[in-house]
Amino acid sequence: MLDLVVHNGIIVTVNPDFDIIKDGIVCIKDGKLEDVEARDIDLPLPDARNIIDAKSGIIMPGLINTHTHLPMALFRGLADDLPLHVWLNEHIFPAEGKHINPESVRVGTLLACAEMILSGTTTCCDGYFYESCVAEAVCDSGMRAVLGQGVIDFPAPGVPNPSDNIKIAVRFVEKWQDRSSIITPSIFCHSPYTCSEDTLHKAKDLADFRGLLFQTHAAETKTEFDRIKSKHKASPIQYLDRLGVLDQNTLLVHAIWIEDDDIETILKSGANVSHTPESNMKLASGVAPIPELLNAGVTVGLGTDGCSSNNNLDLFQEMDFAAKLHKVNRLDPTVMNAETVLKMGTIEGAKAIGLEKTIGSLEIGKEADLIIIDTHKPHLVPMYNPISHIVYAAIGSDVRDVIISGKIIIRDKRLLTLDLEDILTRANLLGDSIGDSIH
Amino acid sequence: MLDLVVHNGIIVTVNPDFDIIKDGIVCIKDGKLEDVEARDIDLPLPDARNIIDAKSGIIMPGLINTHTHLPMALFRGLADDLPLHVWLNEHIFPAEGKHINPESVRVGTLLACAEMILSGTTTCCDGYFYESCVAEAVCDSGMRAVLGQGVIDFPAPGVPNPSDNIKIAVRFVEKWQDRSSIITPSIFCHSPYTCSEDTLHKAKDLADFRGLLFQTHAAETKTEFDRIKSKHKASPIQYLDRLGVLDQNTLLVHAIWIEDDDIETILKSGANVSHTPESNMKLASGVAPIPELLNAGVTVGLGTDGCSSNNNLDLFQEMDFAAKLHKVNRLDPTVMNAETVLKMGTIEGAKAIGLEKTIGSLEIGKEADLIIIDTHKPHLVPMYNPISHIVYAAIGSDVRDVIISGKIIIRDKRLLTLDLEDILTRANLLGDSIGDSIH
Repeated sequence: MLDLVVHNGIIVTVNPDFDIIKDGIVCIKDGKLEDVEARDIDLPLPDARNIIDAKSGIIMPGLINTHTHLPMALFRGLADDLPLHVWLNEHIFPAEGKHINPESVRVGTLLACAEMILSGTTTCCDGYFYESCVAEAVCDSGMRAVLGQGVIDFPAPGVPNPSDNIKIAVRFVEKWQDRSSIITPSIFCHSPYTCSEDTLHKAKDLADFRGLLFQTHAAETKTEFDRIKSKHKASPIQYLDRLGVLDQNTLLVHAIWIEDDDIETILKSGANVSHTPESNMKLASGVAPIPELLNAGVTVGLGTDGCSSNNNLDLFQEMDFAAKLHKVNRLDPTVMNAETVLKMGTIEGAKAIGLEKTIGSLEIGKEADLIIIDTHKPHLVPMYNPISHIVYAAIGSDVRDVIISGKIIIRDKRLLTLDLEDILTRANLLGDSIGDSIH
Repeated sequence: MLDLVVHNGIIVTVNPDFDIIKDGIVCIKDGKLEDVEARDIDLPLPDARNIIDAKSGIIMPGLINTHTHLPMALFRGLADDLPLHVWLNEHIFPAEGKHINPESVRVGTLLACAEMILSGTTTCCDGYFYESCVAEAVCDSGMRAVLGQGVIDFPAPGVPNPSDNIKIAVRFVEKWQDRSSIITPSIFCHSPYTCSEDTLHKAKDLADFRGLLFQTHAAETKTEFDRIKSKHKASPIQYLDRLGVLDQNTLLVHAIWIEDDDIETILKSGANVSHTPESNMKLASGVAPIPELLNAGVTVGLGTDGCSSNNNLDLFQEMDFAAKLHKVNRLDPTVMNAETVLKMGTIEGAKAIGLEKTIGSLEIGKEADLIIIDTHKPHLVPMYNPISHIVYAAIGSDVRDVIISGKIIIRDKRLLTLDLEDILTRANLLGDSIGDSIH
């Protein structure tokens, strides 16, 4: 007896052969994929506790968001169209200092999880503070996540004394390691310009000792590049490499201001990259050389970044931006084709955060993390190529059902794990006080 | 007695003072805006045949799409990620030659109109062939439109002999001028590289004689720029200026490959520009110097272009792309702020197509073309600034109600003017035969 059967859809497997199965069926048992295949219509549907008819829609792996700051959902639209230092120092940092606490982190995270799951994201990789509160909220949502407690050499929410940053990170990791099958703890070491050599070393040692992903923002802005070059006589990537923090368990977020040598260094180290095109565009940070990184063989996943620099968490839009940005940047419509970008949003994202053995594609034995796209809509009819529709035409609101670890989280657009009304009410209340304090 | 009252929302007027009215009320009579103001909550709602509660959402002018090829909705996703000439010559032109006829034009147009209205667009400016069939379908949808019969010096759908192109355009104009209050005929003269001097002159003379908008693609690709420069010893813009076809009734679509002189020429001539960032990015045509055009004082509206180079008709996404593309292109997060971009999607778009006296903003006496955005969603809560949400966070599917010329076209996300099921069925059938012929 199966737990769940999903049938009557086009399965976009994103398996190594990139198989697309026209009239497919997905069988799920104990949270895992038991079968992913073409349906023999002469046979009845297999016995299952639950059956979902995809109604000719697209069945695909859940999307993977490799870079978020979940609680910042509360700051969406608080400040836009400003120079980076004004945005950060005069708006975001003061708002965080005043309003980020365990309660607001919980509400912001629930809000972000609701948005992400409703728009087809089943896994995210987060970095923030009070990360244990983030983890509890993410657990409640049913979403899979890699969660990094923030480490930075400045006073931060929950870490008033920066010299405690590693200690607090250790505490977080000890609490969450092996506690939940859907939560993987991680270390989020803010950046090479906000963390000392000593902090970077200690944070990486902690991650290595526990076998965890080490996330860091790197080479995001020209200012950062120039500052590190002048201080350390090396590019941000060369500097991190010299410190010995680059390896296959390192996720470099942004990687915009990198040179040919840096690409070679990243490749040799085995480090992975999180590409966040919408945030990079909105903050005018620059265009990361993603086609070059991919050509070299570096693994690149997609991320939305926090809500205040995007301003939403819809990975369908992020795929669209990624595909189009690099085409116009290179004046070449053949780079970053739809298949490449879909992989970045799924299996390559899984690789980037170390979960490619369990998620990122619909293959037998993997976790049953999948979504159904309702294609019975004017902007998705007719359909010549499901991959084209996924990347260029669909949006998050086209997602009808979401299954994570075999559990139905969204059914017919209704979020089953969280009380959405309550979250919206509480987010609005917090928003009122945040708004009052800035206006 | 009013015909319709919309209340309990934040009104984003886009009037000359860019007023935002917190608890606003919009009164509509005879298709026009009778009042747009803050509601006095001590007074009862005025008498009206119909009342819509916006439920704290955003009430704003309907979006204006200044460049479409509506029937191409049928070709969405038919071919992507290809060099422009391969895409056009090996895929789009053959598909048009084989499948574009009055029936497919009708179905494609209905499909496009359904998509556009559902995503908050109340006016479009189109250029295609069999434009009379386009006009009939648009009329049925209830959407406002400026519709240009295509003029090109090659055999085209419905114009097998190019020497008939002007004659057929005259026939279209004669049929549609003053026939419907929501349809304005226009001339769509394809481009300076597909139309001879003689054709450009005749088409512009026809437009002038009838007082119509003259639309033309111009300076879209480097290839076009080089070809015209070598043939006519002038940039595409200087060439068009020399021919005398640039004036305030000319809409230049794309305007990517333009120089400082060209900006000056466009400004002096009074010509307007349609900016189509997603299409320009996807086809890797280049980045139009929109901040420079705006700084100079040129009127610039937004357009999606046809579905096969975008691949949807969602102007909310187009605004998001426009805002972000130019920031990263200039490495300046302050260019193209949300207010500027929202104006491009509304009042500036209206100016670009010659309808600024009737639409583009919510002002007393103008046509009642407005939409309501449902903001009770995780990605739109909390709301500090409605303009930020409109440009950076909202998507077409957040539109709940659409009113055009005072008539309710969408109510609670339900399209009232068209039989959506029938359109989807017919589009799928046509898609089957188009798909069969290419695979």
